[in-house]
Parts: sequence; C-alpha cells; structure tokens
Amino acid sequence: MPVYKAPLRDMKFLLNDVFDYPRHYQTLASGENATPDIVDAILSECGRFCEEVLSPLYQSGDEEGCHLENGEVITPKGYKEAYEQYVMGGWQGLSAPEEFGGQGLPASMGLLKQEMMGTANWSFSMYPGLSLGAMNTIYLHGDEQQQQTYLAPLTEGRWGGTMCLTEPQCGTDLGQVKTRAEPQADGSYKLTGTKIFISSGEHDLTENIVHIVLARLPDAPKGTKGISLFIVPKFLPDAQGGVGERNAVSCGALEKKMGIKASATCVMNFDGATGYLIGPENQGLECMFTFMNTARIGTAIQGVGPAELSYQWALDYAKERRSMRALSGKKEPDEVADSLIHHADVRRMLLTQKAIAEGGRSMLYYAAKIADHMVEAHTAGDTAKVEKYDDKLGFLTPILKGFLTELGCEATNLGMQVFGGHGYIREHGMEQIVRDTRIATLYEGTTGIQALDLLGRKVLLMTQGGAVREFTLKVANFARKHLTNKQLRPMAVELLKLTAQWNLLTVRVMLAARKDRDVVSAAANDFLMYSGYVTMAYMWLRQAAVASDRLENGGDESDAFYRTKLATAEFYYERLLPRAQAHATSMLSPTRNLMQVAPEEMAFTG
Amino acid sequence: MPVYKAPLRDMKFLLNDVFDYPRHYQTLASGENATPDIVDAILSECGRFCEEVLSPLYQSGDEEGCHLENGEVITPKGYKEAYEQYVMGGWQGLSAPEEFGGQGLPASMGLLKQEMMGTANWSFSMYPGLSLGAMNTIYLHGDEQQQQTYLAPLTEGRWGGTMCLTEPQCGTDLGQVKTRAEPQADGSYKLTGTKIFISSGEHDLTENIVHIVLARLPDAPKGTKGISLFIVPKFLPDAQGGVGERNAVSCGALEKKMGIKASATCVMNFDGATGYLIGPENQGLECMFTFMNTARIGTAIQGVGPAELSYQWALDYAKERRSMRALSGKKEPDEVADSLIHHADVRRMLLTQKAIAEGGRSMLYYAAKIADHMVEAHTAGDTAKVEKYDDKLGFLTPILKGFLTELGCEATNLGMQVFGGHGYIREHGMEQIVRDTRIATLYEGTTGIQALDLLGRKVLLMTQGGAVREFTLKVANFARKHLTNKQLRPMAVELLKLTAQWNLLTVRVMLAARKDRDVVSAAANDFLMYSGYVTMAYMWLRQAAVASDRLENGGDESDAFYRTKLATAEFYYERLLPRAQAHATSMLSPTRNLMQVAPEEMAFTG
Repeated sequence: MPVYKAPLRDMKFLLNDVFDYPRHYQTLASGENATPDIVDAILSECGRFCEEVLSPLYQSGDEEGCHLENGEVITPKGYKEAYEQYVMGGWQGLSAPEEFGGQGLPASMGLLKQEMMGTANWSFSMYPGLSLGAMNTIYLHGDEQQQQTYLAPLTEGRWGGTMCLTEPQCGTDLGQVKTRAEPQADGSYKLTGTKIFISSGEHDLTENIVHIVLARLPDAPKGTKGISLFIVPKFLPDAQGGVGERNAVSCGALEKKMGIKASATCVMNFDGATGYLIGPENQGLECMFTFMNTARIGTAIQGVGPAELSYQWALDYAKERRSMRALSGKKEPDEVADSLIHHADVRRMLLTQKAIAEGGRSMLYYAAKIADHMVEAHTAGDTAKVEKYDDKLGFLTPILKGFLTELGCEATNLGMQVFGGHGYIREHGMEQIVRDTRIATLYEGTTGIQALDLLGRKVLLMTQGGAVREFTLKVANFARKHLTNKQLRPMAVELLKLTAQWNLLTVRVMLAARKDRDVVSAAANDFLMYSGYVTMAYMWLRQAAVASDRLENGGDESDAFYRTKLATAEFYYERLLPRAQAHATSMLSPTRNLMQVAPEEMAFTG
Repeated sequence: MPVYKAPLRDMKFLLNDVFDYPRHYQTLASGENATPDIVDAILSECGRFCEEVLSPLYQSGDEEGCHLENGEVITPKGYKEAYEQYVMGGWQGLSAPEEFGGQGLPASMGLLKQEMMGTANWSFSMYPGLSLGAMNTIYLHGDEQQQQTYLAPLTEGRWGGTMCLTEPQCGTDLGQVKTRAEPQADGSYKLTGTKIFISSGEHDLTENIVHIVLARLPDAPKGTKGISLFIVPKFLPDAQGGVGERNAVSCGALEKKMGIKASATCVMNFDGATGYLIGPENQGLECMFTFMNTARIGTAIQGVGPAELSYQWALDYAKERRSMRALSGKKEPDEVADSLIHHADVRRMLLTQKAIAEGGRSMLYYAAKIADHMVEAHTAGDTAKVEKYDDKLGFLTPILKGFLTELGCEATNLGMQVFGGHGYIREHGMEQIVRDTRIATLYEGTTGIQALDLLGRKVLLMTQGGAVREFTLKVANFARKHLTNKQLRPMAVELLKLTAQWNLLTVRVMLAARKDRDVVSAAANDFLMYSGYVTMAYMWLRQAAVASDRLENGGDESDAFYRTKLATAEFYYERLLPRAQAHATSMLSPTRNLMQVAPEEMAFTG
C-alpha cells in the first residue's frame, strides 16, 4: 500500500528561498506569530498528520465510500476518528480570527495545510474545506449574532458547513435558481427546494452542519439579481449555542460518482426548513462570490496535490519495476532487465509530472502571498487595498484553477501510464488518483468558465488587456535580470519573447472580439492554457534562478536538490512550454471553424 | 438512459465515397460476396444488434461487473443471452475461412463489425475479440489436427479463446516469462505457472475456452528466444470434437479495475495443465506476433468507438441543457437560457470529439484495405506480397494504436466536460466511457511501446526513414492535386508543408540517434503524436476533397452532410493540427533534459 510523503523540502525551498515568506510574514499583522520556527513546526506536524492518519485512509475510503442509512450518511471506516484528531489538533482554525477561537495565522498557512491534506486524501479534505467556505461567508456577511452563534463551533471544527448553490436545472447559470424562501413572522424564513451536488451535505463527522443556501424571496427579481443567501442549520442552535431542534433539511440521496467516493455528495431537500437571511436581500450571489478568488485557489490545489502524489508513487514504481534494456546500453547488467527509470520515455512522463507538481505548487504559493495581503487589508478595513489585491488575485485565479486542474489530470494519467497495465488495477491506487482528480476541472466553475472569466472578464472587460500588461511587465523585468547568466539565459530569452507575444495575442483577440463577440468564447480555452504555460514558465525561471545562485555558492548536500531544480526547469522549457505555441495558433483561428455548422447538422446518425 | 446509434451515414461515406470499397472488394477473392447490397445489409443488421442488444447492457454491465464464484466467472445479467444472439447471427465467423464454417468475407468487414460492437459495448466485444486472436493463431500456426479440432467451434462462437502472455513480473518484456511446459510421453505438455491480466480467461458465455499460452520448454534458451506457444483448452476436446475432461487451468482471481468491468480480467493458474505445442519450439513470440499489426488495429478501434459514443451523448446533452446566453446574443430568447451548443467553447469540445471520431474512423478504414490485401496474399500463399503489405501496415499500426487511443482518451474526457458536474455522475454514462477507454493506451503495448515500435523499429531500424518517405510521397501527391481548389487549398498547402517537415524531422532524429541512442526513446512519443496528427490531416483532406466535389454537383439533402464534413476538416486543420508543431519542437530538444537527473535525485521527500 503506497503512502504519501509530505514534500517538505520543496515546500520550504519555495517558501524560504524563492518567495521569501519569512520576510513576507513580518509585514503582516497576522504574521506576527508565523515565525520560521513556528511555520516549520506546523508544517512538520501537519505533514505527519497527513502521512500517518489521512494517507492510510485514502484507498480504503474509495473502496468503501459513503452510505446513506435512514437519512444519515455514514462516512468510511476511520474517517470519524481521523476527523476527531483533526479537531483536537486545532487545524480548522489555523487561519481563522482569534476572536472566534482561531489561531489567526496568515491565510497562506491554511493553504499549505490544505495542500498537504488534499494530497494525502482529497475526499477527506473536502469536509473541513467546505466548512471553511461557510465560515468565510458568515465572517464576511453575517451579523454579529450570526457570527457569535456559528463561528466558534465552525472554527473549532465541532460543526461543519456547506455551500448549497446547484439545483437540478442549473449549476453555472445560477440565475435559474428556484429554491424559495418565505418570510416568517419571527424574522426567519422557510426554505423549500432541492439542491444537488452538495459536498458534505450530510455526514457523521460533526454534531451539526451549517448550510449556506442560495434561494429566492417572494417577488424577487428574475435571474441573478433576485437571489438571496441564507443560513440553514441541520439542527437549530439552542439558546446556549448548543444543538437544538432538528431542521427540515435532509439528504435525499447520495450521488454515485466517478471518484472522491469518500466525500458525501448529497441531494439536499429543503422542506420548509428554517433559515436566516445573511447579507442584504437579493444580493446573495455577490455575497457568495466574495473571496471567490481565494476559494478557487483552494480548488487549484487539486491540480497540484494529486500530481505530486501520483509522481511519488510512479517514481517508486519506476525505480523498482524492471523491463527491457535502456537503448543506450544495459544500466543494471546483473539484473534480468533495467528498471523503468532508465528509459527516456518513462523519464519524460515522470518529469512532466514533476514539472507540473512543482511548477503548480510555486504558482499556488506565489498567489497565496497576494491572498495574505488581501485578507490583511480586509481585516484592516482598507477597501481600496482589498480591491487592489483582489484584482491581482482575480487575474491569477482562473489561470490557477483552470490550467492547473487540467494539467493535474494529465499528470495523474501519466503516473498511471508509468505503471503500464498495472496502472489500471485498483490496488495500486494510480487509477483512483485519476478518478479523484477528474472532478477538479468540473466543479467550482468548469475550465470553460474559468477561461471565460479570465479572457472575457478579467482581461478584456475589466482591464482592456491591462491585467496582462501589468503581469507581463513584472515577468519581463525578472527575465531581463537573468539574461547574462549562462545557464538561465535560454529560458530568460524564451520567457521574454512570450511576455511580448502574450500582449500581442491579447490585443489581437480584443480587436477581433469587437467585430465578433463569439471570439471571446472561441479563444478563451486557448488563452487560458497559453496563460498557464507562460505563468508556469515564469515560476520555473524563478526557481531556476534561486537554484543557480545557490549552486554557485554551494558545495554541500543541497547541491543535488538545486541541480534537479535546474534540470526540471530546462525540461519544462524545452519539452512542455512549446505547447503554448499550438494554443497561440489555435486561439487566432477564425470563429467560423466553430460556428458555421448548424446545431442540427452536427451529426447524421440514425 | 442514453443509447448508441450506429453512424452508418459516416461509415458509408468513408467506405463508398472516400475509399471506394466496392471496387476494392471486386479485386479480392474474399470480396466476391461482399457486394454493395450484402455489405449494406450486414452493416444495418450489425448496427441493429449493437443498438438494440449490446448498447442497453453497457451501463448495467459496468454496474454489476463480473463475479467469481467457486472458480467460475459469472458475467453480468443479459450478457449470456446477448452472446447467444451473437452466435446465432453467425457474427463470429464473418471474416473467417469458409472451410471452418466462416463466411469468408474480407477482413475489413470484421473490423466494421468490431467497430460497432466496441462502440456500443466495449466490454462485451472483448469476449469475441479475444477469441478472434486465438482463431488467427491456430489458423496461422496450428497443424491440421489442431485446426480441425478447434477452428470450427471457435468460428461458430460456441467456444471462446484467450491469449495468455503477461505474468506478474513481466508484460512488455516477455523475455522474462517463467511459465514452464514439461513434455509428456504422449506428445503433450504439462504447463505450470501464473498468467495475469487474461481477458476472458474464464466466463460463462461459451462451453469451452481455448487458451493460447506462452511458456518455456525445459532447457530453452533464456530470454525471448526460448519461448514456445501452447494450446491449453479449459476442457480437453473429446474424440467427437465435444467437451471432455476438465483441464488443470483455472481462474484464481478477478482483477478489480478502473473500467471495462463487464470484461473478466483473470489471474489464470496453470497447475500442470495439459497443453499442445503450436508452431515450432522456441519460436512462440514470432508466432504470437504474426498478424500483430492486424490485431493492434483492433485495439485502435478503442480510440475511435468511445470517441463516437461520447460525442453522440454529449451532442444530445448540449442541445438539451440550457445555461447562460451565447456571447453573440440570445439564440433562444423565449427560453430561460440558450442551450449549451450555442457557446463557442462547447462547440470546440464537441468538434474536437467529432474530428477525432471521424478522422480516426477514416484512418482505420484506410488501414483496413491494406489488411485485406495482406490476408488475401497470405491465403494465396504469396509471401512477397504478404511482406509488402505487412510493411505498409506495420508503419501505420503503431500510429493508429498509439495516437488514436491517446486521442480517444481526450475525446471521451471532453464529452464528460460538456456535461459539467453531471459528467462526473455515473448515471449519465460519460465517466464510464472515460474509464473504459483509459485501458486502451495501456494494453496491447502501451503508447510508449507503440512509439518505440514506430520510430525505433519501423522508421529507423527497418527502413532508415524509408517508411516515412514512401507514405509522405503518397500524401504529398494527393495534396498537390487539390492546390487549385479554393476551399481545399489552405489545407492542401499545410499538408504539403507537413510532409516535408515529417521527412526532415525523421532525418534529424536519425542523425542525432547515431551519436546518442537515448534519442530514439526520448523522441519517440513526440514522433508518434506528430505522425498521428499529420496522418489524420491527410484523412481529413481526403474527406474534404470528396465533400467539396459532391457539393459542386450537389443540391440534394446530402449537402448538409458534406458541408459539415468540410467544416470539420477546417476545424481540424485550424484548431487541432497546430499541436503537431509543439511535438516537433519537443522532439528535437536534447536528451539532456531527460537524462541528466540521476534516479536517486528525482525526488527529495522524507
């Protein structure tokens, strides 16, 4: 049974050497306690919890899945005990405000925790992950009483939370939401409707579950402008803040899914359930989507974590399994055959996984610093700063979520491929990682939605290309600094070219879109993927630059680590980055090739 | 519950208009009975069987899976009855020699049958598919008595067959096979050993199962030169050709797999089982791999069929499901939202599926003509001709198997993506297609093995680039003919450029490989994918050329079909073909970026 090893060496390299988190934390009020010693201790302890407690439940949870019995969801064996340890460790409140029992550490610390937990056991990590979403919503939009009632047990982890958005007829297009909320004499509401795909909608890990629900007030305007947000607890809180009367919200069914089977995906029925308005009437969508950028970074983790896990297991297998001889001559002449790792094509697969996992991780940590600043500005009540950082993050978020989850699918499929036919067999776990990861490009906004958000909203509508200009300026300045370093020069030159091309592509798409609105949707996916490859190239140059610098002054056992970093950067630039050009060409091709076929002429079967 | 519709319109377009199968069949002895009327009738009847009998068992078979009870495998509900209908219809012997009860039709007719069956229900199609492998082996290498004993019941379908190659320690590297065969006084052998991943190794569909087994004679040379081939029947045939004594071969376990769950994947134990040598001693691998090219075309179908199926279902969903408004303005103003098909990005996904399904199908039918000639030459005993056609086919086979199955995975994942979150839910069937298809790049030689076979063996070692020169000459001649047609010119120009580039790339890789043997393995995957994209481009120009011609003289209801063909060809050239350039760039990059990291420095966890 393979296990997860927390990649602390790489995490610390990024945190300390590449992004200088120690200094970053010194600039944050919430960073006061995030001293290098504390951060190290938290990473080690979280890594241990993930390795020893969560990882062993990864495959058994998939095998057993969740079960619905008399309206209650039973999570797989061991999940309840693991969750208890999670609560005991105080992990849920890591980045939550101290006034509600949290540890008040920077948001980025929460991301590091989520990364390790999500890598060890994605399904498990969804339970506390959804709770975080509910906590954030109540923290941002709840009134004082709501915060007092719900935030302490949620921060402790004693209660769980969900986000109830999707209905059978709509997911992306939330303007179609039908769930009704009828006002009651006591100021509460009765909610009636059906929500689907509700992660953690019902389970046995917590004593209460706090649902955040999108619904319509009577006579609300049609569409997105008529949706309000409600708190609907499974058990109504009693006067002492404990668990009171059972509410009329229940799990009608569990979805049978491709993967993440240990995560309960529920059909939730609201049968006149008592709810409480949170935030202003008819502004539920805005409320729901505050800090959406931060939440989507959380989903982007699912591109990185599984790539890392699949890489770890594939690498072990490639070192052990023997097949054929390397083309350049026997590498292990005393053995019956050479191990897989000596075949260049196997290395291509492994290095692709590695480049995605570590390149993706650096994109996450890069964005997490901005998220820290945004949360800090929000706590300080500095609206202008919040907006500034939210804009920066808003540009990166769809790239991270869209691009990294797509590449996560590729990486996990390559890990399976390294195993040959054995990859298809469940016991090795490789196909489970593929199945679990596959949801990542679908939920929290499909890749198509991320692409539209990036190109249509963040780049064209909101900034007329300014977001690309601003980001590429920073990238180009960095690249220019490394033109004189012999090892880095080829990468820096390539990256400089790409920053220019990215702007040019943006302008060309913008001009074309003025004449033909379909251009935005037609070009969006290629624009997203192109943006992702260039952003990851920037991250690999940043890592390579540190590695090159350290090697110059090196001579210790860390040299091997830095050599590998440089080599992986070269691999990325030479073998993966060329794909950006295919996206550039496709992006500029006419919309005609997509739009000219009438829907009824798309097929001629039957 | 979605169903499969046999794409007869497209199949007939390729058979009649693009590849002129009617004339092709006139040139074959086996084609005497394959008149257009007969072919039409067979396609319709086979389509009906697949739509009405096999398709309804697709999802239920996945849900139920196979079960092992007291050493016997129970196939899912309905499979036995469907198989009986298959046997009653005489489908197993469609392309088998008449002397053993077959219908003696050309090999390509069998491929058409396999395509439809494999699209409707891949798992089901594997049972008769594996039998075909056993039939071919006995037909090619069995002595007269073996042919008399086994071929009639196999051709009828009353008996099934398997190919037992893989063992726990080896799959690709069959030189490591350990199963022993001890000669007995009566001329038979006792086989002892364990085989894994044996498709159809045990099941309840047939009264007997004929295993073709790789094993070693005592004192056989080590490695691949010491492997012989044996027939090991589940029940020893009695004197009347019926089923006699139970043999000591049994199913020890069923593998739990990601998909194709209705196909029994067995661990087979040979405990001194009686077997009969087939073919010469120690030449088992050569025997097993005769006609391997034809067999691998069969596996390439799994890239095409599932792409077709996933496209059909995704297209239906995209027409029904409503979400948001098209960027170019409301398309269905009276509805709550526009259907998905009006979004350009959704069309990108659907057209990618369509281009892969129909482009892949044309690659199959193109190759199937060559297979027909090869079988014909074999029947006529014309060894020189067999070799000629086998070489032609040998060049195409790894491209078809490797490239089409990779693209099949992409296409089925896109179909799932069209469904959004619903794609992840089992009831829609989209995730099952993804899981079922995923095996295709792993078995019958992984993509990596196909790539090595293409570049290392077929292109460099056997022909020093001649295979590429010969094929591209034909492609270029075709492209040149269409340079003056305004609609086809851009595609013809692009294709001409690519034929030149393909040769150039081949030469550059060949020269680099002389100095550095790792080049072949390092470049193989990119070379395979590049070759695939260019070959598919040739196929799309061929289809577009016919469509353009028909439209010029058109004016009937077929115009829409031809317009869509032209549009899909344009889509392929403008949005998918640019990927070839990314592969070209990556292919020429130095092996250093793959080989410079020492195995022990690939990771620094723990």
